[in-house]
Amino acid sequence: MEELFNKVLQVNVRCRDCEERKANIRVTIELQLTTSPVHKRDLLVRITDDIDPYFLFNLAISEEDFQSLKVQQGLLIDFASFPQKFIDLLNLCISEQTSDSPRFLLHLSCQSPVLEGPANFSVIETNAFKHLNHLSLRLSQASDKEVKDYLAVCLSSLKAEKHALEMKLKTTEDDLTRQLNYAQQ
Amino acid sequence: MEELFNKVLQVNVRCRDCEERKANIRVTIELQLTTSPVHKRDLLVRITDDIDPYFLFNLAISEEDFQSLKVQQGLLIDFASFPQKFIDLLNLCISEQTSDSPRFLLHLSCQSPVLEGPANFSVIETNAFKHLNHLSLRLSQASDKEVKDYLAVCLSSLKAEKHALEMKLKTTEDDLTRQLNYAQQ
Repeated sequence: MEELFNKVLQVNVRCRDCEERKANIRVTIELQLTTSPVHKRDLLVRITDDIDPYFLFNLAISEEDFQSLKVQQGLLIDFASFPQKFIDLLNLCISEQTSDSPRFLLHLSCQSPVLEGPANFSVIETNAFKHLNHLSLRLSQASDKEVKDYLAVCLSSLKAEKHALEMKLKTTEDDLTRQLNYAQQ
Repeated sequence: MEELFNKVLQVNVRCRDCEERKANIRVTIELQLTTSPVHKRDLLVRITDDIDPYFLFNLAISEEDFQSLKVQQGLLIDFASFPQKFIDLLNLCISEQTSDSPRFLLHLSCQSPVLEGPANFSVIETNAFKHLNHLSLRLSQASDKEVKDYLAVCLSSLKAEKHALEMKLKTTEDDLTRQLNYAQQ
């Protein structure tokens, strides 16, 4: 598992019959290599919300899936170049985030009145003439089991971070107290 | 929701066809008061494992459930006194944990070869003559959704603890650095 991208981005979220709203969404892209039983590469796209532990949508793109995506969206690149191209688009969105009229925007839209079920995650360029869809991925809402697994991983890394902080607090206290004692002598 | 008990206890775990093993299990007892639509008190018993985020068994005992439990296990107390009596038994087990031949022991047993499905959680007293079953509760293994909800709560409180640590680290550093500067003048 190789993590290629992990950043929080501003996303325009639109559900059926609802006002569009802005949300801060973490986008993670990972490349998963499987060697057994066959050599296989899957690109995993995951979007989460640091505030809402239940928010999790994902998509696994295999090399075969990519061929359909390529035909369907008229992409001109191959599977190997796709991750970097996708990341370039996301970084373009980030660079435009502070602009009053950003040229590149991320959209997350779903058919239901609340954000659930499958959702389309798209990179849209807006020019004076029209909206251009650069890429649109159909993400699935994670099942209870997938959310459970995701939260277990979050919990484990948060525990490690907390432990590291406790260690750092202890060494900081010891260190400065020693220096203080020395200075006061 | 009132938390009545929350401690890690040593439990003897036995599955079908397996050697008995000792495990450190966190036992939480909560009293849940519902006022709407009707006044209702439920006792929630939950066992978890601080190491294994997926380990979660629970049981909700309503006043009606308690009546069956009372008859079935020959209890002589009422619902209101039950939580404290249960806690007394758990504390007895804790006080005997370090003994070579503990008189009170907690047992968790299930019918399947691995710990899954319903499990019996019992307080057993062993005297020279026999094993005495003081209390036996049938816990259910939590569903994916229940584990997901439980992990979301854990994550949220761990985040708060981590944030508090970060604050403490910062004030400790500032405080000691100021004292150090003062002492060095």
